[in-house]
Amino acid sequence: MNNTRGPAVRLAELPAFDCWHLIESVEISRVAWNGPRGVSVVPVNHVVSDGALWFRTTPYSALALECRGQWVAAEVDSVDPTTRTGWSVVVRGVAELVDAEDVPEHLADFRVWPAGTRNVFVRVDPVEVTGRKLVAPHEG
Amino acid sequence: MNNTRGPAVRLAELPAFDCWHLIESVEISRVAWNGPRGVSVVPVNHVVSDGALWFRTTPYSALALECRGQWVAAEVDSVDPTTRTGWSVVVRGVAELVDAEDVPEHLADFRVWPAGTRNVFVRVDPVEVTGRKLVAPHEG
Repeated sequence: MNNTRGPAVRLAELPAFDCWHLIESVEISRVAWNGPRGVSVVPVNHVVSDGALWFRTTPYSALALECRGQWVAAEVDSVDPTTRTGWSVVVRGVAELVDAEDVPEHLADFRVWPAGTRNVFVRVDPVEVTGRKLVAPHEG
Repeated sequence: MNNTRGPAVRLAELPAFDCWHLIESVEISRVAWNGPRGVSVVPVNHVVSDGALWFRTTPYSALALECRGQWVAAEVDSVDPTTRTGWSVVVRGVAELVDAEDVPEHLADFRVWPAGTRNVFVRVDPVEVTGRKLVAPHEG
């Protein structure tokens, strides 16, 4: 059961401008999509380039097999359980699969955490970017 | 761009038994569902009770308005960017909405981080629980 320490924090909207800085400050997105087995969500490393959000995966991952041309929602966040503050940004758009040889040259340096060949790049051009933050009662 | 420090870690499956302990060790789920505007994903506080995953929300939230009787995927994780290790668990099931007066008595103590009246409880009975961990090359 959760504890009851500290005053409750409040939710506030984030301007889209702030959202991109926040996305770039962390390395993980949770990507959700609607596939043949219903909705799925997986954590992946991301990078921002050319105004798009990029992931890198294997050709046989669920992400590669199910997301091509599909609408996805990528959630990025950072929360502090001690202060119960944090932020969450969601990028929505259509996932496009790009072969490793066709990505912009600088993206070849995009390293993901897990070992193994990840030669499928996933590009999500943002159609909608929304964000919220949890702030202490006395903060703006 | 992500950096290149450290050896690549590897992905390993987690036994379902371990998954529940991990879920209970943190306070946040990212809940994904397929709604009228396509797939959505929001971070919420969770608690485990009666073998189900519970959230608490407002009657006018997207979660309450769109999830009743719908298939959802709740992703729970903890990652350490320094070591690039961590774990991720996904619980899949159908979301059931329960009024505050109808929840088990001990769930009345379930406090969420944001302020405000959250008198709609969401119960997800797990149909599938899967987990993966990112481990250092020399670890089991």
